[in-house]
Amino acid sequence: MSGSEINADLWMSEYITPWDIYVHGITEVIAYKKTAYQEMYIVETGAYGKALILDGKWQSCSVDEFLYHEPLVHPAAIYHGSPRKVLVLGGGEGATIREVLRWKTVEKVAMIDIDSEVVEACREYLPEMHANAFDDPRVELIIGDALEFLDTTEEQWDIIISDLSDPIEEGPSFQLFTKEYFEKAKRILSPGGYFVVQAGPVSPAEMKMHLRINNTLKAVFPNTYPFVSYVSTYGTPWGFVLASGEEINTRPEPEAIDKMLAEKTTGGFKMLDGITLLGLFNVGKHLREAIAAETEIYTLAKPPKFFGKGSLGK
Amino acid sequence: MSGSEINADLWMSEYITPWDIYVHGITEVIAYKKTAYQEMYIVETGAYGKALILDGKWQSCSVDEFLYHEPLVHPAAIYHGSPRKVLVLGGGEGATIREVLRWKTVEKVAMIDIDSEVVEACREYLPEMHANAFDDPRVELIIGDALEFLDTTEEQWDIIISDLSDPIEEGPSFQLFTKEYFEKAKRILSPGGYFVVQAGPVSPAEMKMHLRINNTLKAVFPNTYPFVSYVSTYGTPWGFVLASGEEINTRPEPEAIDKMLAEKTTGGFKMLDGITLLGLFNVGKHLREAIAAETEIYTLAKPPKFFGKGSLGK
Amino acid sequence: MSGSEINADLWMSEYITPWDIYVHGITEVIAYKKTAYQEMYIVETGAYGKALILDGKWQSCSVDEFLYHEPLVHPAAIYHGSPRKVLVLGGGEGATIREVLRWKTVEKVAMIDIDSEVVEACREYLPEMHANAFDDPRVELIIGDALEFLDTTEEQWDIIISDLSDPIEEGPSFQLFTKEYFEKAKRILSPGGYFVVQAGPVSPAEMKMHLRINNTLKAVFPNTYPFVSYVSTYGTPWGFVLASGEEINTRPEPEAIDKMLAEKTTGGFKMLDGITLLGLFNVGKHLREAIAAETEIYTLAKPPKFFGKGSLGK
Amino acid sequence: MSGSEINADLWMSEYITPWDIYVHGITEVIAYKKTAYQEMYIVETGAYGKALILDGKWQSCSVDEFLYHEPLVHPAAIYHGSPRKVLVLGGGEGATIREVLRWKTVEKVAMIDIDSEVVEACREYLPEMHANAFDDPRVELIIGDALEFLDTTEEQWDIIISDLSDPIEEGPSFQLFTKEYFEKAKRILSPGGYFVVQAGPVSPAEMKMHLRINNTLKAVFPNTYPFVSYVSTYGTPWGFVLASGEEINTRPEPEAIDKMLAEKTTGGFKMLDGITLLGLFNVGKHLREAIAAETEIYTLAKPPKFFGKGSLGK
Repeated sequence: MSGSEINADLWMSEYITPWDIYVHGITEVIAYKKTAYQEMYIVETGAYGKALILDGKWQSCSVDEFLYHEPLVHPAAIYHGSPRKVLVLGGGEGATIREVLRWKTVEKVAMIDIDSEVVEACREYLPEMHANAFDDPRVELIIGDALEFLDTTEEQWDIIISDLSDPIEEGPSFQLFTKEYFEKAKRILSPGGYFVVQAGPVSPAEMKMHLRINNTLKAVFPNTYPFVSYVSTYGTPWGFVLASGEEINTRPEPEAIDKMLAEKTTGGFKMLDGITLLGLFNVGKHLREAIAAETEIYTLAKPPKFFGKGSLGK
Repeated sequence: MSGSEINADLWMSEYITPWDIYVHGITEVIAYKKTAYQEMYIVETGAYGKALILDGKWQSCSVDEFLYHEPLVHPAAIYHGSPRKVLVLGGGEGATIREVLRWKTVEKVAMIDIDSEVVEACREYLPEMHANAFDDPRVELIIGDALEFLDTTEEQWDIIISDLSDPIEEGPSFQLFTKEYFEKAKRILSPGGYFVVQAGPVSPAEMKMHLRINNTLKAVFPNTYPFVSYVSTYGTPWGFVLASGEEINTRPEPEAIDKMLAEKTTGGFKMLDGITLLGLFNVGKHLREAIAAETEIYTLAKPPKFFGKGSLGK
Repeated sequence: MSGSEINADLWMSEYITPWDIYVHGITEVIAYKKTAYQEMYIVETGAYGKALILDGKWQSCSVDEFLYHEPLVHPAAIYHGSPRKVLVLGGGEGATIREVLRWKTVEKVAMIDIDSEVVEACREYLPEMHANAFDDPRVELIIGDALEFLDTTEEQWDIIISDLSDPIEEGPSFQLFTKEYFEKAKRILSPGGYFVVQAGPVSPAEMKMHLRINNTLKAVFPNTYPFVSYVSTYGTPWGFVLASGEEINTRPEPEAIDKMLAEKTTGGFKMLDGITLLGLFNVGKHLREAIAAETEIYTLAKPPKFFGKGSLGK
Repeated sequence: MSGSEINADLWMSEYITPWDIYVHGITEVIAYKKTAYQEMYIVETGAYGKALILDGKWQSCSVDEFLYHEPLVHPAAIYHGSPRKVLVLGGGEGATIREVLRWKTVEKVAMIDIDSEVVEACREYLPEMHANAFDDPRVELIIGDALEFLDTTEEQWDIIISDLSDPIEEGPSFQLFTKEYFEKAKRILSPGGYFVVQAGPVSPAEMKMHLRINNTLKAVFPNTYPFVSYVSTYGTPWGFVLASGEEINTRPEPEAIDKMLAEKTTGGFKMLDGITLLGLFNVGKHLREAIAAETEIYTLAKPPKFFGKGSLGK
């Protein structure tokens, strides 16, 4: 149909599948860098505020990033109840630690990200996202390799959050989605601790990676549960997995959750409350059945191969 | 990032907002028609099967349409419990009546669609979607104007499903999203009946229309509740509203729902069961708060203006 | 800059270089076929009429194809003066033979194209292009392999026209741009004959293939000269090479040419006359210098590798 | 056809017609500004070097700008023979004055551009284009309105070069393509002087503006002649018009031209020499006939309306 307005000359494209491209009108390129690990853009979009793009994949936009970062952080924290020590793997833009810091019980957040150039650019250009979280005395920022960190650390954590960029083959993080890595995470989880993983798209055309991350976590943890949030700029619904030795109650009492949040957090939640949690932890039948049917497990010998510009899964 | 494969020369684009375009690789144009009411494409996509596109808006793809049609139909039917008579407004591709017919209690489904050319093309080219539902003796297909139909009918219906294309200004359906129209729907709802409306996108950047449809329904019905499904090819999460004189139980008991579905339907559900229903009817805080804050109501004097190629809402 | 109108939902894209894409709004897909040799679309464009696309490369549009077919045919015919027998290699859409037939001296045109499915589709759907040329009794259409034809034929031709699709590696024609093939063409050229080759893009960013075709022809023919036409839908200026044992007069007398055309042709030229010929055969210094500096020659052992979606030349 | 490589995530698009878009892969946004007059990008492209884009229209790329700036400047200078004083209207990036300064006879070049912010950005970021021409003592840079300048100046010029951005309706330059403006230019042309105008695209689908600029100049000057160059990044062949009280010899003697250039210039020409000039001044029959048939003239009361994102002409 004809007759509509075009608003941009400058565009950023992302391959959602090898056949489907999401193209976003850009009003300004705020920062661009080829770092030692990846290619970074920070741009001003027409409709979704500022955006961070790494290796061609949209990481977060200021207008809708809460739909990613709140479900990434708070279900794990709620199920734990009183997280004191939280470890964040990745988390470049600082929005994950921003959410963690809402918990008054938190005494220490360690964030380990491999790419200091991305972290520095986010600190400078994306204050809407980190909200000065990096300056909080509870935060310890470690620039380094998460695998090496996990190999050597003795410290125990109440919550571990895997907020890594997608495991694209050429990218820095694909090994961190394997059974070996998940076992290392389990080893440093304190009793009663929870591990949460951003776990890729869950549309019917491209959920293979999500299914295999679920299956790999099931091979390591007694209890796992997938949940889904829809961040529009990802162009596809997004999956997470919560894993723990503890039970994961998929019928939480919303009113009790709201009471806990009022007591234990400083508030400021946009998306998450008791009702939202109940909704998140009851996912569609098609997704539960596909996870149940999945047989493959990611290992270091057979890691995920999720190509940068849209893969139907390998 | 460079180095990825391109799979298409032929593309269909949809403006999701005035700044954001979803572009889908096409392998074949199966049918094209400028009908008396709208412009229609039926195409074979690279990743999502066959797709129906009307006036530049993606209506459904064979690979992910169940994520739209199952939530459109079954929550209303479940809350009712024993629907005998169902009225579908719109529903061109026949997938809505396909889902209605799964209910053994259903004795009659009337589907009223204004565009016989679209319906005929779907019957011919989209058997995956209608699954021969048009041939079921319980189905009465009426080619005509839904507004005229509602003005003149005396018949009562247990469920009314508004499965209309988006209310774009130049399109055939925008009047059908107004208070006057919703009141007509209420008048012909049988006691204990439910009305469900496909109600537009709900991303943070473009939820205005959804909020106002909610608010308009609240002005007419004692009880309303929004819910959301994630159809990847829509490029944004999609909203529905359920409205009724009856209460809408947002804490259904999944096991009881599954028992009801086993008894009263012929099965074949891909997405919907008791757990899914519980998840659907507990939506995000941001959406509930935005709906509560909305003040505008659509009327025939002030109808929705949702432009064809992506609008942030008017 | 914002505020412009969009006129299409359906698009065909062509990579002009690996970095530059020309995207054309389509109003109708008239025909689509995966033939035994290539992938074919015939479409109706928004601005350039009907178009033929083979293996993702735009072959010709009804609105601007005269800018390709007139320079392809008439300079060779003019320099010859009285062509009686003309051989066309390729030429699927029939516009090349349409131009040849304007010469009253022509007694026979043989057109040899490998792909009967493309020829048939063009006859059916592109009457604007062939103008019923296939029905002219002087035309002999041979469906077959040009290389085989050249190996076995004894017949002599006054003009040989190489109207082949670009020599993309996976395509049917790349061997036909080699020294061995050009020698075969020379062998069956009658005394005083001319050989003309469509010879690829000549923009500063992607003229390598054109340079090497020139150089390869120079290794075979005593006289060669490049010329350029600009067909907008090719997105880049297009090169040809004329080769002969005869001299190529780059200072033709326009008035004498016009007189010859009035006598020896049936007229109907849109672009070509004496002045145009003089302009065509005096090309830019940068192109002449680049050709003079080129050292590589295409052979069957080292044929051109022009990738389908835009190559800077190999 | 499938299987090709994608090289970019960031793209700049230009509407060539309202249906045809040229999309260029960008590797870096070097500068962006909304100036008082227009929107400016300076970018690094994948295949064509650095590019300047104003109001969505590609002005020049470092790899192919010589194909625009050499024909803009040198034919007028050659036909004059000994230009001493040259006036450039527009010319932001400094490449036009760079070419003018090759003429040893030149004593003064005045360049009048309305947009100091664009000129400053070009001086800083596009040294490849201006080659320090702004620092030449013969150059006088005047930031101001060309119309005002022409109204008030008494000075005479041997050559006047209209190197303005396209006359898009919202842009700064559309009045400068009218009969009134051309008459002002004629008034300050010294005896034997030449006026040259960049005069828009000349493809069959969008040559209206070019035809009318020709026709408007014919109403003012005794002699005019169109010529065409092929700048790939413009996506369409580009027209110029030379106008003068003197005759324009369309059969120049190439050898004499080369001798003149050797004597009177400092050399460094990439595209232009005697042969090139002969080729340029013998344009296609279709263009000559269309110009002859054109009847409209642009006046201040009826100026050109060339919309920014591709117009078929108004």
